[in-house]
Amino acid sequence: MSAPSEGARSRRSGSTRRQFLLGGAVAGVGAVAAVGVDLALNRADADQAPASTPMNGEQTVPFFGDHQAGIDTAAQAHGLFVALDLHDDVDRDGLARLMGLLTDDAARLTQGRAALADSEPELALAPARLTVTFGFGPNFVARAGGVGPSWLATLPAFGVDRLQAEFSDGDLLLQIAADDPLTVAHATRMLLKDARGFADVRWTQQGFRRAYGTERPGTTMRNLFGQVDGTTNPEPGTADFDEVVWSADGWLAGGTGMVLRRIHMDLDKWDRLDRSGRDASVGRTLANGAPLTGAEEFDEPDFEAKTSLGFPVIPQFAHIRRARGDGAERIFRRGYNYDERPSGASVSESGLLFVSFQADVDAQFVPMQRRLDELDLLNEWTVPIGSAVFAIPPGCAEGGFIGETLLT
Amino acid sequence: MSAPSEGARSRRSGSTRRQFLLGGAVAGVGAVAAVGVDLALNRADADQAPASTPMNGEQTVPFFGDHQAGIDTAAQAHGLFVALDLHDDVDRDGLARLMGLLTDDAARLTQGRAALADSEPELALAPARLTVTFGFGPNFVARAGGVGPSWLATLPAFGVDRLQAEFSDGDLLLQIAADDPLTVAHATRMLLKDARGFADVRWTQQGFRRAYGTERPGTTMRNLFGQVDGTTNPEPGTADFDEVVWSADGWLAGGTGMVLRRIHMDLDKWDRLDRSGRDASVGRTLANGAPLTGAEEFDEPDFEAKTSLGFPVIPQFAHIRRARGDGAERIFRRGYNYDERPSGASVSESGLLFVSFQADVDAQFVPMQRRLDELDLLNEWTVPIGSAVFAIPPGCAEGGFIGETLLT
Repeated sequence: MSAPSEGARSRRSGSTRRQFLLGGAVAGVGAVAAVGVDLALNRADADQAPASTPMNGEQTVPFFGDHQAGIDTAAQAHGLFVALDLHDDVDRDGLARLMGLLTDDAARLTQGRAALADSEPELALAPARLTVTFGFGPNFVARAGGVGPSWLATLPAFGVDRLQAEFSDGDLLLQIAADDPLTVAHATRMLLKDARGFADVRWTQQGFRRAYGTERPGTTMRNLFGQVDGTTNPEPGTADFDEVVWSADGWLAGGTGMVLRRIHMDLDKWDRLDRSGRDASVGRTLANGAPLTGAEEFDEPDFEAKTSLGFPVIPQFAHIRRARGDGAERIFRRGYNYDERPSGASVSESGLLFVSFQADVDAQFVPMQRRLDELDLLNEWTVPIGSAVFAIPPGCAEGGFIGETLLT
Repeated sequence: MSAPSEGARSRRSGSTRRQFLLGGAVAGVGAVAAVGVDLALNRADADQAPASTPMNGEQTVPFFGDHQAGIDTAAQAHGLFVALDLHDDVDRDGLARLMGLLTDDAARLTQGRAALADSEPELALAPARLTVTFGFGPNFVARAGGVGPSWLATLPAFGVDRLQAEFSDGDLLLQIAADDPLTVAHATRMLLKDARGFADVRWTQQGFRRAYGTERPGTTMRNLFGQVDGTTNPEPGTADFDEVVWSADGWLAGGTGMVLRRIHMDLDKWDRLDRSGRDASVGRTLANGAPLTGAEEFDEPDFEAKTSLGFPVIPQFAHIRRARGDGAERIFRRGYNYDERPSGASVSESGLLFVSFQADVDAQFVPMQRRLDELDLLNEWTVPIGSAVFAIPPGCAEGGFIGETLLT
């Protein structure tokens, strides 16, 4: 499959930021629902009183396209990540059959249609912006007889890591996301039923963000520390985003790389830190996410600014300074909170499913993570306990299947 | 505390069904949000095109009142149930202090205000119809030196039960429900921080229904079998509901009884059952929840109707026939689906958090459950693995606390 066409790119770029933040809805929904979106847009423009949101059950995100959905799609409220391990007897032809089945399921379910042999078709009728995004681990690509990308491997070991096998690695990733938890549960089950003959579940990780309609579209998410999380993201639909995210290499052209890290957050320890200590650890104020040198969330941090005593206003150890470095490496983050039923004696089992997309994991993510591993005050309260890297193949056209650039 | 005043009762009864199904929002929200609700109501009346829903982040349900919220409140999308075990050294005075603290937290958080000493106050600003409902187990009432109700005890053993201690019983229940999962996570943490000096977490159980805005208000929920679940519920705001749910006895007057059962659902086995078998097992069609003798969900089942061959249209073993019996016992159901990260070799860990409210558990729930235990085709695919009973005390006025009728 060739690189994304210029036409498709400019169509995407042509949508306004606001439309994009409404979840790709303008491009994706049918005529009736689009009217609802327009009403909502107009109303939000007309008055700042509590905006209405269109009913979200019938909203859809297109499945077919140059890129897979679920990457530049405004993040849905619920995200489930499932890693599968391939059975030993699945060969290249088997992989193509598997991806054909799963593509068909995803193409139907994301548009609010029942999967073939869907045993609960009524649960499929409310897609709620469902997207299904597939990713390949190193073993999948090797089994397919493919080559590269070079960064598709277990990440280098970081000193802060305390990785658990039950949250790490995997051959095939499914990212299943929607604004409705029942939609996610049903889609997951349909996909796993079809995958069952080819692969076993290695792990599943459930995450959430604010519900659809809780906040105005475009509000940056907060994690369970209360931090505004993801301010510096490139903006989908811009050339900047395209450069950060989409690969141009071989079978992966139009695809990207995904890093998924399960970051345990010690909320009890965080509680013992006062407000100014919290602000300093990140380099932003908790209140609105503004850098300590600014007033508003999207103000550019001034890393040179000094206090009257001559200390940096944004400390040396602050997360945003360490993550940024010289600004050369950039990633696109699309993470989820998790808060699960604790097991054993622990009172909470909470944290962040850190998810980033970038064209080249080694060139973009790894240097940033090395800096954070060396020094980042947030390391005091966070521990990576899971880690996985996947190559996210490009999208496909109707009649094709995800992975065809590798498997045909 | 005296029984709920007639005035308060009739005010509640005066609200229309539609208003009620919008989550008690009309009575509870501030003026600005109420405008949004009215707009939505009017629009939904004016055209049946995709209705808009008001932004749900700022919507609130009143905390203070004759009854606790979270019972006659239209069920929110996310429900978390936490059972605590009291420390041995907590006496009656300690219980009053604990309930005073938790009442204050709940009164603030449900109205979108930070808890006292809230370490992440920004996370409190979107209540999204948050309710916090407290329930007392047998040991709590005994520790308080209270008496009754007589049904407040572990349920009689049923043949179908395979109960696990990790999902059963408990001294103090918190039901924390909202339309936003981050709101639930934050409120839970604030409450558990204040409870920590008095009690340990015994279990937590997370559940979900359709997201706010996925379906029109008033749509009966579907469980993970795809079944419409809860059609025969009495309608909040009616005399019927009041009679089924609210107790008039002693310190519990204005309160109710809660049964929480964790019902494991074997989705793999259910998959092997064909559509007509599924319909027959419940006595309703999966498509729209209509009884097999009717066309629409709310049609009254005709248990006398016979097929041309002389068999009952609604089979003898059908769930709705067994549950109904002679119709003498009634309950109010307010359950949630669960779908958790499977542990060990299992592929899914799914089911229903069956939650029912009734004035008298022994007189209303137990006979019904006995009939279902004897014969209910659904028992083929479901196994109760957790069970707990709590007395839900009445609400309180501002300045009071939940449990004051028992503890003062």
